Amino acid sequence: MKNTNNNKHAEILCIGSELLLGNIVNSNSRWLAEELALIGVPHYRQSVVGDNFARIKELVLEASKRSRLLITTGGLGPTPDDITHETLAAVFNSSLETRNEVYVDIEKKVKTNIDISSNNLFKQTLLPPNSKIIPNPTGTAPGIIWTPKPGFTVMTFPGVPSELKNMWAKTAVPWIKNNLAINEIFHSKIMKFVGISESNLAQQIDDLLQKENPTVAPYASLGEVKLRITAKAKTIEIAQNLINPIEKELRFRTGLKCFGTDNESLPSVVLDLLRQRGQTLAVAESCTGGSVGAALTSVPGSSDVFRGGVIAYSNEIKHSMLNVSNKLLSEYGAVSSEVAKAMAEGAKTRLNADWAVAITGLSGPGGGSQAKPIGLVEFAVASPRGCYLNSEKFSSHLDRDGIRKLCVMNALNQLRLLLLSQS
Amino acid sequence: MKNTNNNKHAEILCIGSELLLGNIVNSNSRWLAEELALIGVPHYRQSVVGDNFARIKELVLEASKRSRLLITTGGLGPTPDDITHETLAAVFNSSLETRNEVYVDIEKKVKTNIDISSNNLFKQTLLPPNSKIIPNPTGTAPGIIWTPKPGFTVMTFPGVPSELKNMWAKTAVPWIKNNLAINEIFHSKIMKFVGISESNLAQQIDDLLQKENPTVAPYASLGEVKLRITAKAKTIEIAQNLINPIEKELRFRTGLKCFGTDNESLPSVVLDLLRQRGQTLAVAESCTGGSVGAALTSVPGSSDVFRGGVIAYSNEIKHSMLNVSNKLLSEYGAVSSEVAKAMAEGAKTRLNADWAVAITGLSGPGGGSQAKPIGLVEFAVASPRGCYLNSEKFSSHLDRDGIRKLCVMNALNQLRLLLLSQS
Repeated sequence: MKNTNNNKHAEILCIGSELLLGNIVNSNSRWLAEELALIGVPHYRQSVVGDNFARIKELVLEASKRSRLLITTGGLGPTPDDITHETLAAVFNSSLETRNEVYVDIEKKVKTNIDISSNNLFKQTLLPPNSKIIPNPTGTAPGIIWTPKPGFTVMTFPGVPSELKNMWAKTAVPWIKNNLAINEIFHSKIMKFVGISESNLAQQIDDLLQKENPTVAPYASLGEVKLRITAKAKTIEIAQNLINPIEKELRFRTGLKCFGTDNESLPSVVLDLLRQRGQTLAVAESCTGGSVGAALTSVPGSSDVFRGGVIAYSNEIKHSMLNVSNKLLSEYGAVSSEVAKAMAEGAKTRLNADWAVAITGLSGPGGGSQAKPIGLVEFAVASPRGCYLNSEKFSSHLDRDGIRKLCVMNALNQLRLLLLSQS
Repeated sequence: MKNTNNNKHAEILCIGSELLLGNIVNSNSRWLAEELALIGVPHYRQSVVGDNFARIKELVLEASKRSRLLITTGGLGPTPDDITHETLAAVFNSSLETRNEVYVDIEKKVKTNIDISSNNLFKQTLLPPNSKIIPNPTGTAPGIIWTPKPGFTVMTFPGVPSELKNMWAKTAVPWIKNNLAINEIFHSKIMKFVGISESNLAQQIDDLLQKENPTVAPYASLGEVKLRITAKAKTIEIAQNLINPIEKELRFRTGLKCFGTDNESLPSVVLDLLRQRGQTLAVAESCTGGSVGAALTSVPGSSDVFRGGVIAYSNEIKHSMLNVSNKLLSEYGAVSSEVAKAMAEGAKTRLNADWAVAITGLSGPGGGSQAKPIGLVEFAVASPRGCYLNSEKFSSHLDRDGIRKLCVMNALNQLRLLLLSQS
């Protein structure tokens, strides 16, 4: 990155004492950074200060001297420590006025939502007179786009991530595109992988990771690795043409490890595969307690494929609701491939589905033994052509939450691979 | 917080272009913030800049004027973009010297670890002559504690979180305790609320939000509001004595809205209430698809209370697995209080539990109608003393994910309130 003209830069300021106390991770900074990169606006500084007049003022003054655009989050709420707008007004010697459209909007929200108290809310209607309002469809605190002096604009957003995201796309992005001369855009495609570690994947594609346009950058979360292919170009079409051959090469090298791109998720991919065949799915969950069902039903429209399931947390339920025989349970124990198989077959039959996935395992921290340690999980997939079994021993470094997340990924990926092999 | 003397302040600077691209969340800032709060060092600013000489220099210069202590992370590695130490040296007109102890340490690590390539590593031995070395037991890049001018100290750490944490405790904490006169520590207690909005809660406790020691600060996430009570005192005991009366007053004013403190969650509280009575719980989930079961089983040891449940996503499953009559389903529809009641009673009976919670609703985006709009959710709790019904219409501004999360909170809170009322 080259620093050619300071006054073309953007910077991010997150306001909130809770960030200085370390109570929460600053996810807004990361999200805004990513968004700015995607629309081709370089930013060179991120700051955090508390809900403190003097310190917000100091930072805004600095930013107004070195940057073209300051994006703030936080401090727009109704409580006394929310002082972003009044501090901004003070920095630039502006008054604050009650903005009627905001007043009307808040009044409406108060009337239709008994959870919102009207006290203090009207503080949020006080904005600098010549600022443009960023409406907040999901909350009461609007943001503003304000140019208090030539060549310097400030955009304010609430600290609540969902409100920020909602407001950002509708107002900030168009403003930036119209007002900052952006010659080149960044365009990205994300490829998603399962069943391969980040370092293993990086090793296979080392040469591609060195490329400059498009760039290929890996990042990993538990059980999933993503590659972001980012091209810089004058138009989205040109960028896509730069990305396509790299995607093709990556798919060639990684085969079935790549399960999808961009907005696809493992649940959505599995549901699509089943939908294409007109087949249905049921789940039988012990240690995951409903997490596979929750993941599948997080996808809108899942109801045409997903019939439901049984959360069989106790042995009695495995028996009464999934037809697992007490003999199997006592002979092999609840965490066994025999019981997993019986659970999957029971779910397939009882819920009248074409496919069923079963999970039974030990997610800890209690309940492990030498023969059956924490992290041991038995999977079964009952298909129209028979039942497939798989056993995993997840790392002892993982906590309960981590093991359960990997169980969900693993079960869905096994189902995906079977669906692909039976097509 | 009062800004009495700028030169007693600490600030955090995280260096790394990947943070500006939004590739990763800045977890180091949060971690350092929490550590500083715990040892009683207030810090008032966090910044992020890329691996860029001019911008690191600018920020270090600023910090050296306003702060007593600057803590940096990142830019200590062997690659050409790692320039933290050379930039610091340039800011304060210092030379860099190869430090023999670091050289010996790196040489040893290269010999005993085939994963470390010796290329460029010796760049990391170059440090300002009068700086104190912070050894890095798990990596090759050491940090420094350096006082380049009276009243200003800079501490440098690698950006790798595990290396930072390791090095911090052994060197930074003792240095801070010996060199910054810390007379007081911070101690916090978090109180958690459900069924009340942040603004409503703030209104009820407006006077407490003005307090200075302890401070009371609200923050909200979807469906939950937290209050952090933070006391500053010489010892934890004194801090607790400051916090206790405020907690008592908050409980008095908010009654049953407060469901727990610190590490308690709504699922853990509900499970504890049931455990105390020796009673069991089952769930019947339609629109939440297993999320209530997943939330309950996220708590270790939930198996003594939670028996399991039925994910009844389709009407057939509601009928076959939960005894909901087809007449009810066709007459009132799947999203109706009649069906919710039958689901709860069916789950209680079929899963042989003392209590059962049922949820059926429309979480969107498709499937709504004028009579039954998106966001309409019917809840039922079957208890040993009969079935309780509740209907909610969640805001149309919420997405599918948001509605489902609120459903889980709502169902568990209804169960909690019934358990408390029947005790």
